[in-house]
Amino acid sequence: MKKINVGMVGYKFMGKAHSHAYLDMPFFFSTEVVPVRRALCGRTEKAVAEAAQKFGWESYETSWKRLIEREDIDLIDITTPNNTHKEIAIVAAKAGKDIICEKPLATNLNDAQAMLKAVESTGVKHMICFNYRKVPAISLAKKLIEEGKLGEIYHFRAVYLQDWIIDPEFPLVWRLQKNIAGSGAHGDLNSHLIDLARYLIGEFDEVIGMDKTFIKERPTLKITEELTTGLATAKAGEEKGRVEVDDATLFLAKFKRGALGSFEATRFATGHRNGQKIEINGSKGSLIFEFEQMNELKFYSTEDSQGVQGFRTIKTTEEIHPYMKVWWPVGHIIGYEHTFVHLIYDFMEAINQDKIPAPNFVDGVRCQEVLEAVERSIKERRWVSIEEVKTRGS
Amino acid sequence: MKKINVGMVGYKFMGKAHSHAYLDMPFFFSTEVVPVRRALCGRTEKAVAEAAQKFGWESYETSWKRLIEREDIDLIDITTPNNTHKEIAIVAAKAGKDIICEKPLATNLNDAQAMLKAVESTGVKHMICFNYRKVPAISLAKKLIEEGKLGEIYHFRAVYLQDWIIDPEFPLVWRLQKNIAGSGAHGDLNSHLIDLARYLIGEFDEVIGMDKTFIKERPTLKITEELTTGLATAKAGEEKGRVEVDDATLFLAKFKRGALGSFEATRFATGHRNGQKIEINGSKGSLIFEFEQMNELKFYSTEDSQGVQGFRTIKTTEEIHPYMKVWWPVGHIIGYEHTFVHLIYDFMEAINQDKIPAPNFVDGVRCQEVLEAVERSIKERRWVSIEEVKTRGS
Amino acid sequence: MKKINVGMVGYKFMGKAHSHAYLDMPFFFSTEVVPVRRALCGRTEKAVAEAAQKFGWESYETSWKRLIEREDIDLIDITTPNNTHKEIAIVAAKAGKDIICEKPLATNLNDAQAMLKAVESTGVKHMICFNYRKVPAISLAKKLIEEGKLGEIYHFRAVYLQDWIIDPEFPLVWRLQKNIAGSGAHGDLNSHLIDLARYLIGEFDEVIGMDKTFIKERPTLKITEELTTGLATAKAGEEKGRVEVDDATLFLAKFKRGALGSFEATRFATGHRNGQKIEINGSKGSLIFEFEQMNELKFYSTEDSQGVQGFRTIKTTEEIHPYMKVWWPVGHIIGYEHTFVHLIYDFMEAINQDKIPAPNFVDGVRCQEVLEAVERSIKERRWVSIEEVKTRGS
Amino acid sequence: MKKINVGMVGYKFMGKAHSHAYLDMPFFFSTEVVPVRRALCGRTEKAVAEAAQKFGWESYETSWKRLIEREDIDLIDITTPNNTHKEIAIVAAKAGKDIICEKPLATNLNDAQAMLKAVESTGVKHMICFNYRKVPAISLAKKLIEEGKLGEIYHFRAVYLQDWIIDPEFPLVWRLQKNIAGSGAHGDLNSHLIDLARYLIGEFDEVIGMDKTFIKERPTLKITEELTTGLATAKAGEEKGRVEVDDATLFLAKFKRGALGSFEATRFATGHRNGQKIEINGSKGSLIFEFEQMNELKFYSTEDSQGVQGFRTIKTTEEIHPYMKVWWPVGHIIGYEHTFVHLIYDFMEAINQDKIPAPNFVDGVRCQEVLEAVERSIKERRWVSIEEVKTRGS
Repeated sequence: MKKINVGMVGYKFMGKAHSHAYLDMPFFFSTEVVPVRRALCGRTEKAVAEAAQKFGWESYETSWKRLIEREDIDLIDITTPNNTHKEIAIVAAKAGKDIICEKPLATNLNDAQAMLKAVESTGVKHMICFNYRKVPAISLAKKLIEEGKLGEIYHFRAVYLQDWIIDPEFPLVWRLQKNIAGSGAHGDLNSHLIDLARYLIGEFDEVIGMDKTFIKERPTLKITEELTTGLATAKAGEEKGRVEVDDATLFLAKFKRGALGSFEATRFATGHRNGQKIEINGSKGSLIFEFEQMNELKFYSTEDSQGVQGFRTIKTTEEIHPYMKVWWPVGHIIGYEHTFVHLIYDFMEAINQDKIPAPNFVDGVRCQEVLEAVERSIKERRWVSIEEVKTRGS
Repeated sequence: MKKINVGMVGYKFMGKAHSHAYLDMPFFFSTEVVPVRRALCGRTEKAVAEAAQKFGWESYETSWKRLIEREDIDLIDITTPNNTHKEIAIVAAKAGKDIICEKPLATNLNDAQAMLKAVESTGVKHMICFNYRKVPAISLAKKLIEEGKLGEIYHFRAVYLQDWIIDPEFPLVWRLQKNIAGSGAHGDLNSHLIDLARYLIGEFDEVIGMDKTFIKERPTLKITEELTTGLATAKAGEEKGRVEVDDATLFLAKFKRGALGSFEATRFATGHRNGQKIEINGSKGSLIFEFEQMNELKFYSTEDSQGVQGFRTIKTTEEIHPYMKVWWPVGHIIGYEHTFVHLIYDFMEAINQDKIPAPNFVDGVRCQEVLEAVERSIKERRWVSIEEVKTRGS
Repeated sequence: MKKINVGMVGYKFMGKAHSHAYLDMPFFFSTEVVPVRRALCGRTEKAVAEAAQKFGWESYETSWKRLIEREDIDLIDITTPNNTHKEIAIVAAKAGKDIICEKPLATNLNDAQAMLKAVESTGVKHMICFNYRKVPAISLAKKLIEEGKLGEIYHFRAVYLQDWIIDPEFPLVWRLQKNIAGSGAHGDLNSHLIDLARYLIGEFDEVIGMDKTFIKERPTLKITEELTTGLATAKAGEEKGRVEVDDATLFLAKFKRGALGSFEATRFATGHRNGQKIEINGSKGSLIFEFEQMNELKFYSTEDSQGVQGFRTIKTTEEIHPYMKVWWPVGHIIGYEHTFVHLIYDFMEAINQDKIPAPNFVDGVRCQEVLEAVERSIKERRWVSIEEVKTRGS
Repeated sequence: MKKINVGMVGYKFMGKAHSHAYLDMPFFFSTEVVPVRRALCGRTEKAVAEAAQKFGWESYETSWKRLIEREDIDLIDITTPNNTHKEIAIVAAKAGKDIICEKPLATNLNDAQAMLKAVESTGVKHMICFNYRKVPAISLAKKLIEEGKLGEIYHFRAVYLQDWIIDPEFPLVWRLQKNIAGSGAHGDLNSHLIDLARYLIGEFDEVIGMDKTFIKERPTLKITEELTTGLATAKAGEEKGRVEVDDATLFLAKFKRGALGSFEATRFATGHRNGQKIEINGSKGSLIFEFEQMNELKFYSTEDSQGVQGFRTIKTTEEIHPYMKVWWPVGHIIGYEHTFVHLIYDFMEAINQDKIPAPNFVDGVRCQEVLEAVERSIKERRWVSIEEVKTRGS
C-alpha cells in the first residue's frame, strides 16, 4: 500500500465534497494507493482550523504557497474560486505535485492553456473534477455508445436547470462576481454539459449562443472574509452591486462527427433544483439521463422486437454497472457525493498505474475552448468555430 | 353490407358512450355489419326525446318492453342501472334479440346466472361491456402473456382508485344506493379488475376481502325522476339518507394456476381521478398498465441483455398494435371513448362471423361469482372459494 | 340553429381528422351553428368518392375550383399539401367563403401574406389549424399565465421530437419534397411550437438557427397520383431522389418581452413518436406540457408553502377545465382527434358571434415570419430579427 | 464531547452499512456525543480481522460474549442474522450496554418481548434499525400528517417488491433458512412496511394474510462458515435444500383509527430491485413515497386551488427538510446509506439528552406482534387481531 499525502486548498462546498471522498473512498474501494488527508489550507486561520478538525485533516495552513512547499505533501487539491486556480496549479506543478482541480479549469482559455502547459512540462499527474462522468449511469452510457448501441449520433440535447438565485434579494456571492467566477451559469453549468458531450460523442466544431442577466443588481455580501462562502451561508447586506455574469446561457452546436447539439444552462428555471438532463439520439437508439434521478439511465433500442420497443429505465445499481460492485445490493441508490468518491478512486488507480487520469487538464482546456467560443459568439453575434478560438486564444 | 338495428335502453354516462361508439365505429373501421341507431329508450319522454336527438337516434321509446317488441330492432343495448339489467336482458333474449349489456351483469349472482341461461337457451348473441379489455395496451398485454413473454405468473396486483365522492356533501346518487347499484366501489370498479385478471391470467380459486363505508350518510337527491342521473348533474337536497354500499373493497386472491392476487377498489383515494392500475409479475417478465396513461404499456423482460434491463414504456399507438391501424399516425393518442368503439367493432365482427363475441355473459357470470365470493368472505370473515359460491349460488 | 355547409379539399391524414371533427362536434357540444359535411374534393375520382362515402360527405368534387363555385358551400376547409394552400384560399376568399386552413399557412411568407390580404379584403372568416392550442392543458396554461401565476417569463423551451423517417429506406413522401412541403421538420413541427410560444408568451424579437438533412437520398414513390398520400400508405420505388428539406431545425430566440427561447424540431429523435414538449419558467412559477401526455399539465408555484413546493401534475379532465364539460367524467382522457373537434367548435361559435376565430391567418402569417427568419438566419449564419423579415418579405 | 465506544457483532451487509454510518456521521453532523468504532466481532478470525481493518474498527473479537464483557465498550450493535439477536441483546442489556439492533427484532414475538423486557428492566438505551423512518421524505410525510394536512386517514397501501431470488438456481442463503431468518419476505420486508405504517398512521387492529413459496427447493451453500454471508457473495453447491420461508406474503389490515391497509412483500416481482412504495390517502390529501426515488415525496392537497390540484413532487433536498441541512446544496441527492447515518445521529442525540431513541425495542415488539398476527392468520385462515396475539404471545 502506498500513501498519497493530500494538501487541499479551499474548504467550502467543494472542499467538503472532496474531504468526504478522501474519507469514504478507502472504506468502499480497495486500492494499492491510498489518500491521506494531510493538510487543509485557507486564508482565515480560525475557520480553516475548524474545517480541518471537522473534515478530518491532520493539519492546516493559511498560505497555499506554504502548503505547496511542504515536503510531506504529494498532491494539491484545488477547490477555491475559479480565478485562483491558475496560480495555485502552476506553482504546484512546478513543485512537482500532482494536482486535482475543480472545474471550470480557469476563468479563461489563456489561463487554462497555461495550466495545461505547466502540468505537461513538469510531468505531474492532473485531474479536473468533471464529476458527472463518474455517475455510473453516465459511465454506462459511454459504454453503450462505444459498443455502437446508438449507431450514428444525430442529436445531443442538454439542459442544466437551477433556480437558487431566482429571488432578486439573493446576494452577490462569489459565483455571481465576474472577476472571481469568470462567468455565471455558463462556466458553472455549461462546463459540465460540454464535458459530458465531449466524453460521450466527441469534439465540437462550431457554436453560437445567447445569454442574459435577468436580475441586474443584487445585495452585496456583508463580510468580505466570507469571500469563498458557499451557497448556504451567504448573507445579504443593504448595498447593491451589479451582477456582471450571465444568469442563463444557451447555445447551438455542431459536432465534428455531424451531430447537432443544443445546450442550455440557467439559474432561472423555477422549480428545478439541479435539473441536469441530457439526451442523445442515434440511428439505432437513444439515451436519456437526468441528474436528479442519477441512479437511472433511459435507453431505447431499435433492436428490440417491433411492437414492444420503448424507452426502458435501467436502474444502474447492479454489480455489473460501473463502480457499483463496492457499494450496496442492487436497488439501493447512491447519491451526489459518490461521484467524488469515484473521482478520487480513479486518481488513485491512475497513480498506481502511472497514468494520467481522465478527465484531466486536457479536458479542462477543451471545455474552456468551447466555453470561450460560445462567449465570443455571443459578443460578436455569429457562429464561432472551436478552431478559431484555439488559434487566437493561444 | 348488413345493417343491425340497435335499440338502446338508458342514455346517461354509458348511454352517451355507447351512442358515440355507434356513431364513430363505421367512420374508422370497415365492417360488413354496420350498426344503425334505430331507437333510444327512457322513462321520461321529454328527456329521452332530447337525448335521441342529441345522440343521433332515429326514434325513441318510453317503454323498454315496447322497444324489445319492435320488429325493426335487432339488438338491445342495456345501459341502465344495474338492478334493471336482468329483466330487460331476459325479455330481450326471449324476443330473439342480440344483447349488449353494461357491467356488472347484475346485482347478484343468481340474476347473472339467469341472464346467461336466457341468452344461451335462446341462442342470441351477447356481450358485456368490460371495455378495458379493448384498450390496445391491454390487448397487447394479453398477446405478450399468451406468447409466454412473462413465463409463469406469480403476482397480479390491481387497484382502482377514485375520489369523486370524497366530499361528505356529495349526494346519494344511484351508484350509492344498494337496491339499484347492488354494491358500491366493489361492483363498479372491482368488476373491471376481476375481468382483466381473468382475461389476462385465468380463473380465481379463492378470495378473502374487507370493505368499508367511510361516509355513512349523504344528502338525498331532490328530483326522483333523475334516478338514472350520471355523476355530473347530481344535485343534493337537504335530507340525508343512509349509504348502504361500500366506499372501498379490498381483497386477496389465489388463482387456479398458482398466482397471488391483490385487489383494491375505492372511491376515497384523494387525488386519483380514475386510477386503475394493474401489474403482473412472471418468471420471465412483468407488465404494468395504468388507465390514465392508457396509450402506454410498461414491459420488463429478463430476456434483455444483462445490465440494460429495465421497465420499458411502450407507446401503443403503432399500426402494429391492436385496433390501432385505423386510427391516427403513431404517437397520436386515443382516449377513453375509443374502448367502446372497439367493443362495438368486435360485436359487429362477431355477428358477421356468427360467433359469440368476447367478453360476454359467461364472463359476466364468472365476474359475478368472484364479486359474490368476496362479499361472502367479508360477511363471514373467512376465505371463500369460487367453487363454493358457484354451487350455493345456482 | 344555423347550418354551415362545408366543402373540404383533401382527404388524407388531416382530411380524416377534420371530417371526424365535423361528425363528432355536434354530438358533444351544443352550438347554434352546426357544420354540414356537404362536399369533399380530390383529384382522383375513385379515391375521393370512396373517401366521401367513408367520411360521411354528402357529395364530392374533383376540382376545387368547382367546389368553391358551388352556391351550396359556405366554408372551404383546406387540408391539402402546403404548396396548394395559397391558390385555394385566395379563390375561396374572393368567392366570399369562410376558410379553415391547415398549417403551415403557406410554404413562404409572401404567399402567407397574400392569403391574409385576401381574407381581410373580402371579410370572410378564417382559421388556421394550430390544433394544439385547443388541448385543454394548453388552454389552462394560457389561463394561468394570463392570471399572472408564472410572473415574469424568463424561459420558453420547446422540442418536437419524432422518428418516423429514421429508416433511410423510408420513401420520399410529399412531406419530404421541398416544392410541395416548403420545408421539412421546420414548417411541419416548429410551426406548432412557434404558434404555442406566441399564444402563451407573446411575440418573437430575433432568432438564429441551424438545420440538417441527415439522410440525403431516399427511394421515390412509385405512383404519382398518390402525391397527397399521408404517412401510412406510402410505398417506396427502386429509384432514389434527393431530400431537399430539413430533417431537423433548431433555433434560439429572444422574445420581445425579454424571455429566452430554445426550439428544436426533428424527425430523427429515435424513440420519440410525437414528442412535443414545452416548458415555461417564470419568476413565480413554471409549466410543463408534453403532447403524448396531453391530458396533463405540470405546474410549479412559488406560492405553495415552503418545503412542500414541487411540480404538480394536473389531470386536465375536470369539468372546470377548458372544453372538458361536454366530454366524460373526470379521469377519462381524451385524445388527439379531440383537438380538432375543439377547433371546429370554436369556429362555429365565432360564426355565431360574427367574430374572427383564433388562431387565424394573422397567426399563420406571424408564424411564417418566424419560420422564415429562422431559415434566413441559417442561410446567412447570423441573427435575424422578425422585423427585418416582415419588411423585406412584404 | 463525549465518546461512545461501540462494539459491533456482524460485518456483512448491515455491518458494513452501520460501520459506514459511524464513519460518516461525525463528518456531517455536529453532536456532543460521538461514536468510536472500538471493536468488531465475528466468529471467523481471519474474516473479522480483515473486516475490522477495512471498516476502520480499532480491534476485533471472535466471541460476542467477550465483546460484551469488555469494559471499554459502551454500546453493542447487533447486525447478525435474526435468530441470534435475542441472546446477544439480553446479555448486553444485563451488562448494562446500550443496544442498537437490526430488524426484525427477533424471529418470533416471544423472543422480541424477552428482549424488550431485558432492556427495560436494565434501563439501557435501545434502538431498532427501521432505517426508512430516517429518509427525509418519510420524516416530512410524518410532519405533514401530524399537521393535519391529510385530514382523516382512509387508506394505507404498501408494497415492497424485489426480484433478487427469482432465479431458481439462486442458493439457499441464510435469509432463506427458517431457523436463522424466521421468515422470508415477511420478516425482512413487511417488517419495514409495518413499522412505517405504525409510525405514520398508528396502530393495527386486525389482519388477514396469505403467503407462498414459489420455488420450493434451492441449491445449498457450499461453505458453512459463510453462514452470515450477505446477498452478493453467496455461491451455490450441487445439493438442494428445502425453502421453508415465504417468497411472498400479502395481507389486509384494519387500523385502530379506521383506515384500511393493504400490504405486500415479495421477492418475486420481476423487474423491481428494491421497490418499496407506500401511499396514504386522507380526507384532505394524499402522500406517495417510493424508496427507489427516496429524495422525493408526492403530495396531493385538496387545499390547492380548484382546477390546479394534482400530485406534486417535492424534492426533499432543501435545507428546510428533515436532516438535510448538513448535507449538500438543494438538488444534490442522498442515497441509501444516509438513512443509517441519520439513525446513528439520532441515537447519539438521544444519549446526549438521556432519552430512549425512536424507533426502539417497543417498536420492534409492536412490529413483531403484527408480523405474528399475519402468520397466525395465514395458518388459521382467518382474521387475527393484534390484541389476541399480544395476549397469547406473552
